[in-house]
Parts: sequence; C-alpha cells; structure tokens
Amino acid sequence: MDRKVILYIAMSLYGYIADNNGGVSWLEGHSDNPNSDNGYSDFIKDIDTIVMGMTTYEQVVNELSPNNWPYQGMNSYVFTHKTVEDNKNAEFVSSDIVEFINKLKNEDGKSIWICGGANIVNQLIKSNLIDEYHLTIMPIILGKGIRLFSDTNLTSLLKMKQTKEINGILDVIYTRRVE
Amino acid sequence: MDRKVILYIAMSLYGYIADNNGGVSWLEGHSDNPNSDNGYSDFIKDIDTIVMGMTTYEQVVNELSPNNWPYQGMNSYVFTHKTVEDNKNAEFVSSDIVEFINKLKNEDGKSIWICGGANIVNQLIKSNLIDEYHLTIMPIILGKGIRLFSDTNLTSLLKMKQTKEINGILDVIYTRRVE
Repeated sequence: MDRKVILYIAMSLYGYIADNNGGVSWLEGHSDNPNSDNGYSDFIKDIDTIVMGMTTYEQVVNELSPNNWPYQGMNSYVFTHKTVEDNKNAEFVSSDIVEFINKLKNEDGKSIWICGGANIVNQLIKSNLIDEYHLTIMPIILGKGIRLFSDTNLTSLLKMKQTKEINGILDVIYTRRVE
Repeated sequence: MDRKVILYIAMSLYGYIADNNGGVSWLEGHSDNPNSDNGYSDFIKDIDTIVMGMTTYEQVVNELSPNNWPYQGMNSYVFTHKTVEDNKNAEFVSSDIVEFINKLKNEDGKSIWICGGANIVNQLIKSNLIDEYHLTIMPIILGKGIRLFSDTNLTSLLKMKQTKEINGILDVIYTRRVE
C-alpha cells in the first residue's frame, strides 16, 4: 500500500502561513490550553518522514527550535537548489520533488509529512500528490502575508474527512475529492 | 440589548469569495445533500435585516435569483456611492456604513446579516462592528480570486464558538476575541 502524503500546516483564518517578512510568531498564543500540544503528538505518531523547503528549515533551526532538532528519529528531507552537505538532522535534496515523493511513496514506511513552504506545496498539489490536507487554522485574521498558495490557475476539489475544535483552534482534515 | 451583526458568507478553503471575474458559480455543487439548504434556514430565522454592497446586489438580481428577491420580508439595505431609487425589495444607502450600522444596532429587531462584499466587510471589521463571523467554507482550493479581505494592516483576533460539518461543507462560527 502506498504511504500517505499529508500536508499538515498551521495558518491564519484566511490562508496565510507567514507574515510579509516570513515570520510566524503570530501563530503562537491562540490555544486555550498552554499545556497542550493541540493535537501534534496524535498527528506525529503516524509519521516517520518529513519534507520541507530550505526557508522552512532555516526558520526551524534559527528561530523556532535553535537548540535541538525537533524531528529527531524521523527521516528529514530539505529541498533546495543549493548544494548543502547533509547533517545529522537532515538530508538536503536538489532533485525533482515530484519524482522524489513518488519514490518515497513506494518505499515501506509510515506517512510522509509535507511541512511547507508554499513552493513545495504548490508543486505537490499540482501533481495531485497530497493525499490529506490537515490544517490547523488559528482564530486570527491577517490582512496580508505569505499565502500557502501562490496565485495560479489551480483549482482543487477536496472532501472533508473531519473537523473539530482543539483548544479554540480549528483542526480540519480533507482528502482529495477525485482519486 | 444591542442587535448582533453577523457576517455570514461562503468562501473557498483559502478565503476567496469570488473568482477573478466576480463569479460565484464555483460555490455550487459541494454539498453531499442537494436537497438540503446546508444550514441557511437555521441561520435566517434569527435575521430580519440584510446589508450588502452594490456588486453583491447586482449579482443577486442578475445572476443568482433573477426572478424573485430571495430576502423578502427582511429589511434589505444596499450600500452604493451612486444615487439609486429604492425599489420594493431594497433601500439604497449612500451614507457612512459605520454610522448606519451603529444606528441599526440600537434599534429594536433581530440580528443583522452582513452579506458582502469585501469593501463593506473590511470597513466593519476595522470598526470592530462584526459580532459574529459565520463562515461556510467550501471544500475547494482556488489559486486566485477576490479575497474577503483586501490587503491591509488588519489583524483581528477571534474566538471560536462552534465548528461542524454540514453535508461536507465546513460551517464555523467565530466571535470577536476582544470585546
């Protein structure tokens, strides 16, 4: 059986994943329960592989978690056009992401987490490779920022699998409508 | 007690309320139950006043419901900079919308439905006049279109009141976080 490719990402109510400077501090502080991980540990137990772009990687190591790699024990792949040497946390990949994800899907393993950013996500949606859209939508409206989807001719039909509230945050899962 | 001002609007998963040409036909056909009104009759029973912009009005009378005014029995106000004579369905208002809504809120009556478009909505959010955001989010990603919020410095904190699935459509209600 194919491994599932899951886009799991936090955003504002109207689809921004970062502010105009790429910052994500506005994502914090919305949970009604500061001691809860708001569903993250439930999500992560079915994941063994994480895929992200270079901007997201740099945000994780420089800003969000500078002292330890938060995805230890997972296969972490970072997509970049630059040549970067692998480190103990991540492999840096410059090949075609669509081919790479198709190859991963046919290997044994748990689900694959697509963690951003927008460039990677757009390519995978266009290639119909996202099996599940798991969105955690913060109760905040931002007037501007970086959108998950850049303006394209993309139209994608989804099917709702589940919606729930987790500590005041909207947690909604969609699958592709057309298989 | 003040009457409630409710923004009740349908949008794509990432916040578009119309395609680039103003069209809304893509909003149709997402319900799992074609015989259901997907919560509309529940919503409307607490409403006696509807407020919209001229573009929305023209869309209703020319495209969505050319043969009969769908909001009969309600007080319908259409905001426009042009001078338009009232007709049996609607009053056309060119005064300041913020003052107008504040006046309405202090009159007796049921809740007030803000039905769009983006220009009206932006002004009312900035003036902190929307009490409830009732969003019906269709399971469709559009790559481009007309956003509910034009790019502004707006940041608005909301509080989730309820989320549920209605026939495959995400129906979510927020209130203002700061009163």
